[in-house]
Amino acid sequence: MIVVMKIGAKQEAIARVIETAEEIGFSAHIIEGKERVVVGLVGVDGQRDKMITMGEMDGVDKIIPISKPYKLSSREVKNEPTIVDCCGVLFGGEHIPVIAGPCSVESEEQTIKTAEFVKAAGASMLRGGAFKPRTSPYAFQGLAEEGLKILAKAREVTGLPVVTEVTNPKYVDMVYKYADMFQVGARNIQNFALLTELGKTDKPVLLKRGMSTTIEEFLTASEYILCEGNKNVILCERGLRTFETATRNTLDISAVPVIKAKSHLPIMIDPSHAAGHWQYVGPLSKAAVAIGADGLIIEVHPNPEKAWSDGAQSLTPTQFIELMGSLRSIALAVGRTI
Amino acid sequence: MIVVMKIGAKQEAIARVIETAEEIGFSAHIIEGKERVVVGLVGVDGQRDKMITMGEMDGVDKIIPISKPYKLSSREVKNEPTIVDCCGVLFGGEHIPVIAGPCSVESEEQTIKTAEFVKAAGASMLRGGAFKPRTSPYAFQGLAEEGLKILAKAREVTGLPVVTEVTNPKYVDMVYKYADMFQVGARNIQNFALLTELGKTDKPVLLKRGMSTTIEEFLTASEYILCEGNKNVILCERGLRTFETATRNTLDISAVPVIKAKSHLPIMIDPSHAAGHWQYVGPLSKAAVAIGADGLIIEVHPNPEKAWSDGAQSLTPTQFIELMGSLRSIALAVGRTI
Amino acid sequence: MIVVMKIGAKQEAIARVIETAEEIGFSAHIIEGKERVVVGLVGVDGQRDKMITMGEMDGVDKIIPISKPYKLSSREVKNEPTIVDCCGVLFGGEHIPVIAGPCSVESEEQTIKTAEFVKAAGASMLRGGAFKPRTSPYAFQGLAEEGLKILAKAREVTGLPVVTEVTNPKYVDMVYKYADMFQVGARNIQNFALLTELGKTDKPVLLKRGMSTTIEEFLTASEYILCEGNKNVILCERGLRTFETATRNTLDISAVPVIKAKSHLPIMIDPSHAAGHWQYVGPLSKAAVAIGADGLIIEVHPNPEKAWSDGAQSLTPTQFIELMGSLRSIALAVGRTI
Amino acid sequence: MIVVMKIGAKQEAIARVIETAEEIGFSAHIIEGKERVVVGLVGVDGQRDKMITMGEMDGVDKIIPISKPYKLSSREVKNEPTIVDCCGVLFGGEHIPVIAGPCSVESEEQTIKTAEFVKAAGASMLRGGAFKPRTSPYAFQGLAEEGLKILAKAREVTGLPVVTEVTNPKYVDMVYKYADMFQVGARNIQNFALLTELGKTDKPVLLKRGMSTTIEEFLTASEYILCEGNKNVILCERGLRTFETATRNTLDISAVPVIKAKSHLPIMIDPSHAAGHWQYVGPLSKAAVAIGADGLIIEVHPNPEKAWSDGAQSLTPTQFIELMGSLRSIALAVGRTI
Repeated sequence: MIVVMKIGAKQEAIARVIETAEEIGFSAHIIEGKERVVVGLVGVDGQRDKMITMGEMDGVDKIIPISKPYKLSSREVKNEPTIVDCCGVLFGGEHIPVIAGPCSVESEEQTIKTAEFVKAAGASMLRGGAFKPRTSPYAFQGLAEEGLKILAKAREVTGLPVVTEVTNPKYVDMVYKYADMFQVGARNIQNFALLTELGKTDKPVLLKRGMSTTIEEFLTASEYILCEGNKNVILCERGLRTFETATRNTLDISAVPVIKAKSHLPIMIDPSHAAGHWQYVGPLSKAAVAIGADGLIIEVHPNPEKAWSDGAQSLTPTQFIELMGSLRSIALAVGRTI
Repeated sequence: MIVVMKIGAKQEAIARVIETAEEIGFSAHIIEGKERVVVGLVGVDGQRDKMITMGEMDGVDKIIPISKPYKLSSREVKNEPTIVDCCGVLFGGEHIPVIAGPCSVESEEQTIKTAEFVKAAGASMLRGGAFKPRTSPYAFQGLAEEGLKILAKAREVTGLPVVTEVTNPKYVDMVYKYADMFQVGARNIQNFALLTELGKTDKPVLLKRGMSTTIEEFLTASEYILCEGNKNVILCERGLRTFETATRNTLDISAVPVIKAKSHLPIMIDPSHAAGHWQYVGPLSKAAVAIGADGLIIEVHPNPEKAWSDGAQSLTPTQFIELMGSLRSIALAVGRTI
Repeated sequence: MIVVMKIGAKQEAIARVIETAEEIGFSAHIIEGKERVVVGLVGVDGQRDKMITMGEMDGVDKIIPISKPYKLSSREVKNEPTIVDCCGVLFGGEHIPVIAGPCSVESEEQTIKTAEFVKAAGASMLRGGAFKPRTSPYAFQGLAEEGLKILAKAREVTGLPVVTEVTNPKYVDMVYKYADMFQVGARNIQNFALLTELGKTDKPVLLKRGMSTTIEEFLTASEYILCEGNKNVILCERGLRTFETATRNTLDISAVPVIKAKSHLPIMIDPSHAAGHWQYVGPLSKAAVAIGADGLIIEVHPNPEKAWSDGAQSLTPTQFIELMGSLRSIALAVGRTI
Repeated sequence: MIVVMKIGAKQEAIARVIETAEEIGFSAHIIEGKERVVVGLVGVDGQRDKMITMGEMDGVDKIIPISKPYKLSSREVKNEPTIVDCCGVLFGGEHIPVIAGPCSVESEEQTIKTAEFVKAAGASMLRGGAFKPRTSPYAFQGLAEEGLKILAKAREVTGLPVVTEVTNPKYVDMVYKYADMFQVGARNIQNFALLTELGKTDKPVLLKRGMSTTIEEFLTASEYILCEGNKNVILCERGLRTFETATRNTLDISAVPVIKAKSHLPIMIDPSHAAGHWQYVGPLSKAAVAIGADGLIIEVHPNPEKAWSDGAQSLTPTQFIELMGSLRSIALAVGRTI
């Protein structure tokens, strides 16, 4: 940690900083600048809270933490990319898997029909929500276990592995029984009880970035899963909350190269929730493939106008088939397959 | 709902919008403007999802929902202010209760000492965290049930009612046993499983706004509690995430008059988490009282430099006593007491 | 405009709204909903300010403007894409021009050397700043007219048309003399005196979106140029200010399809200012080409480590050549050329 | 400056950083941490651009600048508060001046009438816009010099000094002739040509923070004025752009104590532009006085429903008189006068 003293800070203030630091267990290195003194502190882990408090001491301008709050997800700790395997579908390699399906599981017919369509179009996995975290309690909340059974049935019929959201730690076991991959939604990125529970399982976790989560916090949230022993984490960018309202969220496409530089975990893109309007889903998907995303998760509904949720951002099967064709050319252009 | 057609939208497109609306159950009113046609739809509840999808139809520029996603918390439904009673401490009336105490419960001695101090200074309730949702899994996570017991002990000694955070639906019963009020932290504002569980209890809930939650979403989140039957919700503004880093969060002080205009629920301010630095806590508290907040929740620690969490933003007991004095004058100036 | 009344608004309040609207010149259409009354107003232009004030009347919940604040830039007014021609370089067509060059013009040698490099690599135009709007008055502010002369010299040598920033209305004539295209920087997006002055010239204007400008405001700003008679406006997205600090700004890549849906003007991407770090410039450029951007403007410096400004985000000539190769494949995959 | 090396950075990378730093003129101090090496650089001014580029070197994780980009506005350079005198009205002392008046100067009658009212209510200065920077070119743009003359007339009649906005460097001389204080609007906070011009005059400048300007950038922008020799700068917070739409902008009330901690310049609040709705102007004004603001600037219009701009956020004279009464009590409670 670096303690930046104010210009003209008194010798006693500097001495008191050093004394406090040494009490905690640091050794202090003084750098006398032209304007001000800077104190470098070396030597202790896990005292971040106490260190931060030093920023409030007399004569201190600010403190700057140097070590990162995440470790296991960091490229400094593990430099080769992690490839996550979900029933043979690989995330983080040359192939770019596309997960597709309806926002909500509404019925067996709707789900299986969509699953067959997206499989035919080249999707690698099926998505579908059985537990829906909705902003309003008056909106459709999902079919719960009945929905999970339908997803399992759709897998049986099509062979596509299945990912679905879990929102409550107490349902982790139930979802485990039916699904091949857990999804943590943007609203639960800091639901640490849930993350910890998922860290104790052995199935892959698709972890969506919250809409006001920094990349550093995103990687730190993934540590809750990794440090429990589950190494199968796939990150997913789905848009930030900004002042812009033309799209539902502002897709932070830069997160792809940034996360690839800082972490070894695969990073995918959810263009549907970012866009909020189906006509922007295709363009965002193309950008995602070009920039190097390790996967896509796209909402597809046989009849978006009748969808029980997120119809506005769902593609029809025909639109999805067309899009997959375009994505294949771009994947080829960047040396990958889809 | 209002459907805004594009300039020059074809008659068929307008007809198709009306047909779709009537299928859902709406009656349609056409308004022919100078530039474009606008269709007003009247008559159905609970079809928000399908309505939103109409925004994607041919010839439609955009759709504008008219009804609000929240009802029970709205002033349009209940116009007189709600007063929430927690063991005799009233939120929403003329008196402005101050809740004070440490960020985390660290030990019996620290907690009781702080409780006695803040009581002497005029605080109405004690705060203290037993379950701490921390950004990093490597940070102190709280003493859990042991912490709850210490809080109950502090209440016994001082008579101050106790509020503490609950983060996992499965601990609601446990926290209920020890605490007088539940706190839902900013990170859990859309943890709907937790909110629903709290809605089934009869103890007051202090609901903190998330750092990227709009006021409309905040009020809608409160509906998850209200619609289960628990009417004792106290809202709390604690700062938004913005680009500004001089403070930990950007306190949205305007939320106080805005929420008072839109809702009957009491609204308090948490200056400590907004500020992130103890020297700004006093000024923000003064602004909160002047603008009409119905309560304050302030972090106080007997020795902030040694605090296990949030030391940088905690007041010493002496600072807290001084602050309470200043707040009393301002409360008087606006016709209230503290 | 739509006036939404509060639930339970009194008849007199509704009558007063209608009276006020008719005074301004509107005709009013009442829609009685299940919950509340909505009044649609039809018939007047240019009274937006007075209309907005109606939102504050008794019994009014809110007002919703329907007509857009921009007209000439709108696709509703002109549906076919505008192609802007700068000395034969076309923006908005099948070909995607790349503008490249140093952040600042530092010397004749640096500028001409860079120009020759980027031309050889396939750039269509040269960029370089002579007037640099810098956050700090103590930073390098540009060579001014001397810089413009160097740019003109570089054009003479390489044949590349030249774009450069203008920051003060009084220098519009001077810049006109030397440059082929004006650039308006993000900080000047609402410098209306400057925009109006540029609207009176006949040279193309590269208009950068401000870091907190909505797309609606961006298109409305372009009206200041268009309504003076200069139709040669090229829009440029260069990143928004958000809470994320891993990149200098958050590139709003969705702005490309959104602007293409709402406007006929060409829209390009500046990956350098969005990224702030050279290693992210390549990935963002690829995403831009894939999503359908009509051009790129990229900072290239013969020796970024010695650059007088923006060295961190500048590519070396070698990196630029490599990037152009990758971009060509992606352009091909989306049916365009570069 | 601090250069943070990556974990496991090679000796050669460290050596190259030191070499580069020494070339620029720094002396380097190595701190070997448990995890990584940190290099402290001491000794040069004005090389910020080159320093930032060092963040891109091999083996470097990031660089952290230590010295602040502002100097003359800093409390580290001048610790006693600056009091700005405008014709005898003092900003930054015990008294809190209130500036009031219409958004736009519409006519002599409207302006003088408002001036007389606000003077009677206790305002210290008159505001009124003659040059209006409007988002849309189709909105009212102000009366220009005619408006300035009306303002001068109003001063003559009432004795109130006058502040008005200037948006174009070329009108600085004209505005100087009529007004007692210049206002720089939020949109022009980084219009450096304008700031530099104002720095050469001797009249006070009311500098409004931009809606996406950090406090550090705000203070740095003030340097453009200060470093030209004009020390009479009054800062003004007027709201940030965030995702919240219930208010026009999100007032960053914390900016008051933060700026008081970092700068000696007076800081005032503009509650009208922050709120956007007249009913929130009063509450925000109260908060501003309680938190320690050095002034207020409030929009007042004799007939807001007929105002040519900003009617929705303007107080009537009666509302203004009432508000002044409340503000006096709060000022008293915090030991000041109004």
